[in-house]
Amino acid sequence: MGDLLGVAVLGAGHMGADHIRRLHHMVSGARVAAVADPDRARAEDAVAGLDAVSVHTDPEAALDAPGVAAVLIASPGPAHEEALLAAFARGLPVLCEKPMVPDSTGALRIVEAEARSGRRLAQIGFMRRYDSEYRRLKTLLDGGHLGRPLMLHCTHRNVSSPPGFTSAMLIDSSVSHEIDAARWLLGQELTAVTVLRPTPSSDAPGGLLDPQFVLFETDGGALVDVEVFVNCGFGYQVRCEAVCEKGSARIGAEHTMVVTTAGRAHEEVAQDYLVRFADAYDREVQAWVDATRRGEVTGPSAWGLSSNSRLPGGRTAGV
Amino acid sequence: MGDLLGVAVLGAGHMGADHIRRLHHMVSGARVAAVADPDRARAEDAVAGLDAVSVHTDPEAALDAPGVAAVLIASPGPAHEEALLAAFARGLPVLCEKPMVPDSTGALRIVEAEARSGRRLAQIGFMRRYDSEYRRLKTLLDGGHLGRPLMLHCTHRNVSSPPGFTSAMLIDSSVSHEIDAARWLLGQELTAVTVLRPTPSSDAPGGLLDPQFVLFETDGGALVDVEVFVNCGFGYQVRCEAVCEKGSARIGAEHTMVVTTAGRAHEEVAQDYLVRFADAYDREVQAWVDATRRGEVTGPSAWGLSSNSRLPGGRTAGV
Amino acid sequence: MGDLLGVAVLGAGHMGADHIRRLHHMVSGARVAAVADPDRARAEDAVAGLDAVSVHTDPEAALDAPGVAAVLIASPGPAHEEALLAAFARGLPVLCEKPMVPDSTGALRIVEAEARSGRRLAQIGFMRRYDSEYRRLKTLLDGGHLGRPLMLHCTHRNVSSPPGFTSAMLIDSSVSHEIDAARWLLGQELTAVTVLRPTPSSDAPGGLLDPQFVLFETDGGALVDVEVFVNCGFGYQVRCEAVCEKGSARIGAEHTMVVTTAGRAHEEVAQDYLVRFADAYDREVQAWVDATRRGEVTGPSAWGLSSNSRLPGGRTAGV
Amino acid sequence: MGDLLGVAVLGAGHMGADHIRRLHHMVSGARVAAVADPDRARAEDAVAGLDAVSVHTDPEAALDAPGVAAVLIASPGPAHEEALLAAFARGLPVLCEKPMVPDSTGALRIVEAEARSGRRLAQIGFMRRYDSEYRRLKTLLDGGHLGRPLMLHCTHRNVSSPPGFTSAMLIDSSVSHEIDAARWLLGQELTAVTVLRPTPSSDAPGGLLDPQFVLFETDGGALVDVEVFVNCGFGYQVRCEAVCEKGSARIGAEHTMVVTTAGRAHEEVAQDYLVRFADAYDREVQAWVDATRRGEVTGPSAWGLSSNSRLPGGRTAGV
Repeated sequence: MGDLLGVAVLGAGHMGADHIRRLHHMVSGARVAAVADPDRARAEDAVAGLDAVSVHTDPEAALDAPGVAAVLIASPGPAHEEALLAAFARGLPVLCEKPMVPDSTGALRIVEAEARSGRRLAQIGFMRRYDSEYRRLKTLLDGGHLGRPLMLHCTHRNVSSPPGFTSAMLIDSSVSHEIDAARWLLGQELTAVTVLRPTPSSDAPGGLLDPQFVLFETDGGALVDVEVFVNCGFGYQVRCEAVCEKGSARIGAEHTMVVTTAGRAHEEVAQDYLVRFADAYDREVQAWVDATRRGEVTGPSAWGLSSNSRLPGGRTAGV
Repeated sequence: MGDLLGVAVLGAGHMGADHIRRLHHMVSGARVAAVADPDRARAEDAVAGLDAVSVHTDPEAALDAPGVAAVLIASPGPAHEEALLAAFARGLPVLCEKPMVPDSTGALRIVEAEARSGRRLAQIGFMRRYDSEYRRLKTLLDGGHLGRPLMLHCTHRNVSSPPGFTSAMLIDSSVSHEIDAARWLLGQELTAVTVLRPTPSSDAPGGLLDPQFVLFETDGGALVDVEVFVNCGFGYQVRCEAVCEKGSARIGAEHTMVVTTAGRAHEEVAQDYLVRFADAYDREVQAWVDATRRGEVTGPSAWGLSSNSRLPGGRTAGV
Repeated sequence: MGDLLGVAVLGAGHMGADHIRRLHHMVSGARVAAVADPDRARAEDAVAGLDAVSVHTDPEAALDAPGVAAVLIASPGPAHEEALLAAFARGLPVLCEKPMVPDSTGALRIVEAEARSGRRLAQIGFMRRYDSEYRRLKTLLDGGHLGRPLMLHCTHRNVSSPPGFTSAMLIDSSVSHEIDAARWLLGQELTAVTVLRPTPSSDAPGGLLDPQFVLFETDGGALVDVEVFVNCGFGYQVRCEAVCEKGSARIGAEHTMVVTTAGRAHEEVAQDYLVRFADAYDREVQAWVDATRRGEVTGPSAWGLSSNSRLPGGRTAGV
Repeated sequence: MGDLLGVAVLGAGHMGADHIRRLHHMVSGARVAAVADPDRARAEDAVAGLDAVSVHTDPEAALDAPGVAAVLIASPGPAHEEALLAAFARGLPVLCEKPMVPDSTGALRIVEAEARSGRRLAQIGFMRRYDSEYRRLKTLLDGGHLGRPLMLHCTHRNVSSPPGFTSAMLIDSSVSHEIDAARWLLGQELTAVTVLRPTPSSDAPGGLLDPQFVLFETDGGALVDVEVFVNCGFGYQVRCEAVCEKGSARIGAEHTMVVTTAGRAHEEVAQDYLVRFADAYDREVQAWVDATRRGEVTGPSAWGLSSNSRLPGGRTAGV
């Protein structure tokens, strides 16, 4: 397979630092070649101990650093558009954390820029497609033994929302995962959406409409409902039940260890997505590195459903 | 406690025969005094071996039979209104299987007739209030440790629908259970309803809109969603998850026995409501018999929420 | 079915009072005719509000009271032998709480006395045979689809032991349930026993060897292991896993309601056998009343396995 | 971290080929430098497409190949002793699949040879120490909140045994995992062992004593029981319940996806250890590569308990 893939990581915060550790310590075939963060000290901390990594405050400088052959964007959402366009301009393949961009006009500019380049360059960080439970569910649905899917019941809960989280971000930052997962699981496009907002929890920060209940209809006649509740207080829970004509299947129960004390049998509930989806992130980045070294882009994208299963030129993608 | 309560049972079909067995063999303090069914042979079969039971084809004749002090209505829904009015006219307390009556104008006539009698006479057969899991959930919610309930996620599945089941009956025959349970669990009235209908399952009889997805909003700002699917094929499943400000609670998992064979750990799923709610029916009828012998009516009714918790005269009801 | 069965209840403590309530309020076809307890006030409290019950301090006086046709023995174990012999002398059918008697020589005297009477008179209070989970397991094993049972893994845990509980009572009071259940489930007799005693829990009262681990071998080549732990602190747990040639089956998981708060999804664990086996006790006493009124004795006994399935005279028993 | 660690893999069968794939595709910091298998074609198949790997039929030739700095032994058990001694003679660190060697005299020779080398060189392939559930259980027990462990109940089941599997191999090949896990979880040495053998399953190959039930006593007064059943037919199941003074904890339930069809809610049971422990194997080899590159040996060994937590020279090990 030749040399290690040199990656420029943009953003050295919580997510970026975790990806740097992953690229360096967990993933075969890649190395961090450059890192950029407006906070230079934070970037230097994130790569402490690693050899041959250049540190930058300007993302474009990182893209132009020696040895860079691919880009991982882990900066905040508003910085994504500029970074993606810069990567496309250089023909660099990208793994971009979700949300791709925060608004639809920006998203359209990205899609058009990528289309102009004549080939797929960007994979979006919907790591659920790499989670073993989601993949098992996908395989089951594709196998057809349960018949046609009629409904997906989804739950998306966080312990608490970070500062500055808005009522709109419950949809674009959180439910965007379910939007991608539903399209991928069903192989159908969403055609209508209804959002219901019960009286907010008294634990939600002032003004935040939390929880919300979102209903999607699809072009295949299926229904997808999503409870999104980002200040539920008790854990990070992502669950999905597919109700089909011949049976149902659900994922996301917590049953790894059952502890019984003082009148209660309890299971630990993960508090964090980096815990719940740790293996999914590992597999996602490994798959992206592997595909990039083969000159392919195979994962979730901003393109339509068809491009998820068929690459330009007729190749079939792996995910 | 004096003599046994003599009960006239109207209807000797599946449900009526089961209630006759229950009154005779399982419940303390009651006996079947009369039975009525248009099919006299069916009525005679249902009371074979019991002493001192008169058999009728005319419901009113059964109400007037010697020893009758209370009525259990288990005939088909369209026959309920006439039977209820006949019982009220005689001042007889009634346990009436759901749906009370199939349409709202008939329901209003029942409520007005009962109100004219000056006291509660009818208990409606919402047996879930007597199910140990529902009662546990009710106790938990009332205790307040989970904070205010924000959402109820409900599932109501039957293996298959009986002949003649209509798209409207998914609501009035099936979801009526959730309507009663939601009002009882939350102590709130429903204020709005939305029904969504995905493409029907190919296993649903021609023309039946099955499944359906029903959303209720309440005067307390909560949201109740119900999947109703009466031709799901795989089992009778009734589940409820209450999502509150400080935690969630769910009932209805099947875990009584786990059998592992040939690559699968499976739990049996009940196929029938008489199996799933066997103990609830026993407790419901025992509670009705006990209250009737005390001269009280305490269970679910056609009256408002307040009368569920406070009887005329200020007594607090048991359920 | 004629008159109600008049029952003399011996012992009005925790268990006796519960059986009095059950006979009066829950069970069809029986009434409490007499009660005896050395503590007359306790006996009077237990039957307060009931009609036509005579109260005694002498058990034999209760047996001779008007209207007594059967006996329920709920006094402490050391009083059982005398009470059983007195009932046999009067030809009265008996439901006797376990342990039948605390020692083997006394047990032999009971069996010989019952055999002399020429018919079964006593049913022993092994209520697990009436528990819906145990019955489901029994049905599954008898059905043969899992092949021959190879091992039973059993757990028997109490929150804490009552005062005066001895190391021997872990076997005769607690494991006696597993002894009966294993013989009944397997249809095999026990042929060897090994008891292992790890270092006791520091929560066990001084000198009590708790927990213990008991191994039974059977005449069918199966192995039965039992963890008995009567000061486990966290709940009343009774579990059984049957490992067979073609699969395994386990009962006793707690899954009635799952509550998620503060990082934990937990299920309540019953704290008491009267809670865990409430329905089993109801069914046990109802079955005993029904059989007694038919002139039969069908439940667990001190007799061999064969008499469990075949009554004197060739009738097949129900349990 | 400098260059990639060059590994010689001995054995290119099922396990060896999987480790080659893992070292190449999943693990950061290592590469396969040489492979040896008596079947040269099998060895060539296992490294097809990899650069710079020399292929051998003689294990010692592989150890002497250019670029080899560490050894992974995945050959059959009887070949382990010679391979380990050859690695020790060259001062090469080793990851050796279990069982280390099939007999105790050979094991003693290995320990003595390693001791003579003056430092730890070998890590034994007990991958459960790297499984997320086992690690969670270890952390829980070490935390002390459940008090002192009193008993471990262990289950070890395989679908079927490979050809040539003997009654002794149920212990040395299968239960050896529980021996290591029990010592590691409890931090106690085993002092006594009892093996019980129920009548074998009729699905066990002729003469194989399967299942067996093994009881260990420890120097800390705890009890460990193990059901080992290598022809259970229904799945690969590894479970462990730790019963402590203040509570119990169990791992190994299958709950990743629950599918409900035709009257059954079932969970898939893994059929293979490479599926059940896939992530554990990945983490094990990554941890071994990382430690080896640091010049350390930290995992399970043939040495006593103390050397698991304290390396020669007073360093504390990671696992």
